[in-house]
Amino acid sequence: MTSTPSPALANYPNRFDPAALGDLPERLRSTVRRRNDVLGPGYALNYREPVEFVSGRGAHLFDRDGNDYLDAYNNVPCVGHAHPHVVEAVSRQLAAVNTNTRYVQESLVDYAERLLATMPEELSKVSFACSGSEANDLAVRVARFHTGGEGIVVTRWAYHGLTREVASFSPTLGAGSPLGPNVRVIDAPDPRRVPPGSSLADHMRSQVRGAVHDLERHGYRLAALITDCAYSSDGILTDPVGYLRDMVEEVHAAGGVYIADEVQSGFARLGDSMWGFGRHEVVPDIVTMGKPMGNGMPISGVVFRPEVCDEFGRNVRYFNTFAGSSIAVAAGAAVLDVFQAENVRQRVLDNGRALRAGLEEITRESPHVAEVRGSGLYVGVELVKDRESLEPDRVLADEVINDMRERRVLISGTGEAVNVLKIRPPLAFDSDDVTRFLETFAEIAEKRL
Amino acid sequence: MTSTPSPALANYPNRFDPAALGDLPERLRSTVRRRNDVLGPGYALNYREPVEFVSGRGAHLFDRDGNDYLDAYNNVPCVGHAHPHVVEAVSRQLAAVNTNTRYVQESLVDYAERLLATMPEELSKVSFACSGSEANDLAVRVARFHTGGEGIVVTRWAYHGLTREVASFSPTLGAGSPLGPNVRVIDAPDPRRVPPGSSLADHMRSQVRGAVHDLERHGYRLAALITDCAYSSDGILTDPVGYLRDMVEEVHAAGGVYIADEVQSGFARLGDSMWGFGRHEVVPDIVTMGKPMGNGMPISGVVFRPEVCDEFGRNVRYFNTFAGSSIAVAAGAAVLDVFQAENVRQRVLDNGRALRAGLEEITRESPHVAEVRGSGLYVGVELVKDRESLEPDRVLADEVINDMRERRVLISGTGEAVNVLKIRPPLAFDSDDVTRFLETFAEIAEKRL
Repeated sequence: MTSTPSPALANYPNRFDPAALGDLPERLRSTVRRRNDVLGPGYALNYREPVEFVSGRGAHLFDRDGNDYLDAYNNVPCVGHAHPHVVEAVSRQLAAVNTNTRYVQESLVDYAERLLATMPEELSKVSFACSGSEANDLAVRVARFHTGGEGIVVTRWAYHGLTREVASFSPTLGAGSPLGPNVRVIDAPDPRRVPPGSSLADHMRSQVRGAVHDLERHGYRLAALITDCAYSSDGILTDPVGYLRDMVEEVHAAGGVYIADEVQSGFARLGDSMWGFGRHEVVPDIVTMGKPMGNGMPISGVVFRPEVCDEFGRNVRYFNTFAGSSIAVAAGAAVLDVFQAENVRQRVLDNGRALRAGLEEITRESPHVAEVRGSGLYVGVELVKDRESLEPDRVLADEVINDMRERRVLISGTGEAVNVLKIRPPLAFDSDDVTRFLETFAEIAEKRL
Repeated sequence: MTSTPSPALANYPNRFDPAALGDLPERLRSTVRRRNDVLGPGYALNYREPVEFVSGRGAHLFDRDGNDYLDAYNNVPCVGHAHPHVVEAVSRQLAAVNTNTRYVQESLVDYAERLLATMPEELSKVSFACSGSEANDLAVRVARFHTGGEGIVVTRWAYHGLTREVASFSPTLGAGSPLGPNVRVIDAPDPRRVPPGSSLADHMRSQVRGAVHDLERHGYRLAALITDCAYSSDGILTDPVGYLRDMVEEVHAAGGVYIADEVQSGFARLGDSMWGFGRHEVVPDIVTMGKPMGNGMPISGVVFRPEVCDEFGRNVRYFNTFAGSSIAVAAGAAVLDVFQAENVRQRVLDNGRALRAGLEEITRESPHVAEVRGSGLYVGVELVKDRESLEPDRVLADEVINDMRERRVLISGTGEAVNVLKIRPPLAFDSDDVTRFLETFAEIAEKRL
């Protein structure tokens, strides 16, 4: 039942090759074979030797034999795997009742207020959904309704989600998933790839302007620019900040809205701000969030300036059954509790700084490391054939990722050429975890880098 | 901060009018006002006097004062509010670990196998998503990819979900949410509205044929016919069965696929079959499911014939972060456990039959009741100005729904004219619940019907 993927899937990072099924240990082989037999399209496993976990705590995952894996990849369990406060809050709510937003729930209102309190005051309305995809789908529906335009601008290798609409502006999905005729792509903000004589801000502004003009030439008025504030699938590009203000000015001049996709960069992932856009001192028109929001409970959100969403609300029904349910809200509120109680953002800042400093030290002399970059606990290590050509080395990245996994440290890859190590641990990652990560990485760097 | 809804929302059933805020009791008024201040577009509360619940058990919900409401409306908590087996399974999994499908999870494979075992053997692949909307969005993406067509046929007042794509073929969303140019609507299967000399099967077949021809005339080849097997928003039309075979034949002749949307009709809701399509002895090409699947845990699914989805899988990435996570699977599997342990389907058959028989007896002489209909625990009572004209009486339906709520029995309304009482309790509804429901309904019928 294994099937050969087409070239359309060639850039899928760190994907277990189903043709290698026969090489797996027996129990794993049997489970993976059964899995292949029953699961529908699109499922992929990570690593040459996939792994099963039966428990977790903090940034650690444990397999059936009790082996301790350091999780330096999963952003969903942001306050840590099976965090006791979140587990307790959700379990208590499950045992009481789980209703939806057609009934009054004070807990929903409390949570909405707390969430909005983390935002600039212009952003005063929040809607809930189940996934980041649903959040981005709603954001763009509202942007289209509000602006009357259809054009969408994204970065070249962006990923925003998997509904038909959102997939149409997620170029990272590759050739099998066509972009909409109303979609234009611009380069992500890489300071090393700015035309001579231009600043990053000017380059980004001019790209937005060009995309808008091209859309208009094809009969599409701009609805929205949407960017992931960490440019995750473009290769993790977090710095320098500031250019976003110029981009948003261009968007507004063209009658569009700016949507900050905080599914990756939100909830203090980048350390110096609760939200990625906050690092740029910009107030978006719409903000979307998802993955870490409920520490694994499906919940996502869309925050609006009221003037952007009110007319949509007066004309369009939107009832999302599971969104904002009692258990989703219990999870979301418990995550905010932990952020406060554990001062998560400071921990992210401190450990992120230590992690990047350690990685820089280890790789300083390596001819294969073009850059260690990132912010907070979102770190990219760009691997190249050599530092002069900067030619991407995907094979090397794949070796390092799988070497790390063999030593029970979980990372993955990203970027158009899949040559950037993606290091994005739960925000529970502590200083012991940093030490273990760096020790393991140093061993592999010795051999490979 | 209240705002006037446009005519586009006129057919929204049982919607609390924000202008009536001042009439609410103090604590409720304060919470609803805060809610209006922070929630984004589309939120609506049920009933003239909305209600808040703090606990639930079986088909019962309890407010802050301990009042016992009979829930005859919510289909999501299918095995009952806060069912102990589901609560325990999810809480245990939460406390252990919650990973995603990029890692091996034997529990995911076990669950997928169990779910597929409830289906005809041709339907042998399952994908998971978070909501019914995501499930229908994926189903139609796959149908488009597989057929190369774009045309979609739905019933006149259908609701299939809220992503931009799915909203484009959900006419019930009304004028504020335009249908796609590739979408055609046909009448739902109402045996009373068949042209003279025609059978229901012939009428449905001929409507599909007409829709396909019209699509082709506009340059759209058929991708899919998608129907809710209970025609919930069309007014709950469950019988007679059999015509679906004729519709599917037409769809296949046109090169399209048939998608059975079982979000409403699945999981034994209709009593005589686990799946709505099963009542018609038809095997769909794709089946989607959602709401009751995890008893409130966000989880949905898409089941495919492999020949329909395999090529999509070879070409398109699809990773849905929260879908098929350990906790979602724990909830889904626990629901299947309860179905078996409590023989839920038989309970639905028995209590559904008693409920409908009681309603028929109470309303036999009423000039305002055109029909009591439905199957299993999905019951519609169509209210009209008189039995000759069959002119819908929306105002009367609204009175009955709110009278019932005052007596602490929860139902709502449906149908294009919002004149059909929608009675759709948790499948935990037992014979005592039937008795209480009928006693309350009889009191109101005495006064209103």
